[in-house]
Amino acid sequence: MNEIISLLQNHRSIRKFKDQPVSESQLNAILAAAQAASTSSNMQAYSVVHVKDSSLRSQLAALAGNQAYVSESPVFLVWCADLHRYEQAVRRHGDTPVTGNAENFIIATVDAALAAQNAAVAAESLGLGVVYIGGLRNKPAEASELLGLPQLVYPVFGMCIGMPDQEPLLRPRLPLEAVYHVNQYTDNQVAVDGYDESIRDYMKERTDGKVDTTWSKEMAAKAQRPREHMKAFLNAQGFGIE
Amino acid sequence: MNEIISLLQNHRSIRKFKDQPVSESQLNAILAAAQAASTSSNMQAYSVVHVKDSSLRSQLAALAGNQAYVSESPVFLVWCADLHRYEQAVRRHGDTPVTGNAENFIIATVDAALAAQNAAVAAESLGLGVVYIGGLRNKPAEASELLGLPQLVYPVFGMCIGMPDQEPLLRPRLPLEAVYHVNQYTDNQVAVDGYDESIRDYMKERTDGKVDTTWSKEMAAKAQRPREHMKAFLNAQGFGIE
Repeated sequence: MNEIISLLQNHRSIRKFKDQPVSESQLNAILAAAQAASTSSNMQAYSVVHVKDSSLRSQLAALAGNQAYVSESPVFLVWCADLHRYEQAVRRHGDTPVTGNAENFIIATVDAALAAQNAAVAAESLGLGVVYIGGLRNKPAEASELLGLPQLVYPVFGMCIGMPDQEPLLRPRLPLEAVYHVNQYTDNQVAVDGYDESIRDYMKERTDGKVDTTWSKEMAAKAQRPREHMKAFLNAQGFGIE
Repeated sequence: MNEIISLLQNHRSIRKFKDQPVSESQLNAILAAAQAASTSSNMQAYSVVHVKDSSLRSQLAALAGNQAYVSESPVFLVWCADLHRYEQAVRRHGDTPVTGNAENFIIATVDAALAAQNAAVAAESLGLGVVYIGGLRNKPAEASELLGLPQLVYPVFGMCIGMPDQEPLLRPRLPLEAVYHVNQYTDNQVAVDGYDESIRDYMKERTDGKVDTTWSKEMAAKAQRPREHMKAFLNAQGFGIE
């Protein structure tokens, strides 16, 4: 339909990067795009930490499950939900307490996600590839300490950026009718049946026939590895969602 | 730097739309772009409800604070965090319980935000304008009931889409150094001082000198209107973040 929509529709996560730096001007363009994303009531309740130090990179990579690309990608950013800056601003004009109630938690998490997604799109428009690193939430307290995050800030995810050194298959998504509803939410298990088969085909192709699975099997496997520690971590970090 | 980055950097929210429909093919392109966004472990833990029914639109507009554009924009989408579909998938393969623990809550909220932001960018690339409607969280239980949302689904925000009938000023953002950190999180109150003045200038220009405020004053005012009901709502909706 146009070049931008085609770029968006052809997204795939990149986990292998060429040994080629992202330039300062590319990074600045990416960050400016991130900053221009929508933000709830202009709160801009996010921060981004650019991890350049190689020892810090290795430690974060280890916490995130030892994925090589976390320590090796040309750029590694950590996108944080940040209510600390908001709290500081509020304190300039009185003593209204800022708690990380569920609403503020949503605002900050969403602000971080919208900014990050703009960054991802900007990077891809420059021919770069990205992958989100949710694995930072494996050990969020340790990651927060390494990055010096104050109370009311938490790392939502990391992001590797660099020149792609692989061309992964496009992973099929759920059929539109599984995620799209008109006026009323409707269950569509038939669409999920079809998708289970699409993922079976995709995984077979991706693994030369070695892996036989479906989407719902993957989801069932995932449900057995909950990150149960997140609530306690978030409350210790001041988010008060408990 | 390129057309896409320029589009991203020039985002402004649109709250007045021409009486001109968004075509089916435009909507499909927007939704396909949304579906292609990154998603945690391919969970795709979001849903989007297209609200076409005019009575439903008016009721949602009233809940969201009676903003005319919520009932009048050519398209109104509600982006939902959705763990219900995931739960159904998990149940196909056993009885591992799916709770909306804090981690799953983050995943679903982020998945909805990433998909929505891709939709916003796709819409803007077609010359359309968008505005996010966080006001749906004013009365989230009522909004959820109107849309028939099951347990483990909640409306994160709405989104109006249509042909812009206004050219708002670009709202200045925090200086990069206020949100960007290298290796370690650092407070930068000087950057906030400068931004307070930028927002003062921007608000004066936008209101013909009538409004004299700063960013931190706006934040202090916002802190007095917390949506304290969100935690109880989310727990009633099954998210178990309490």
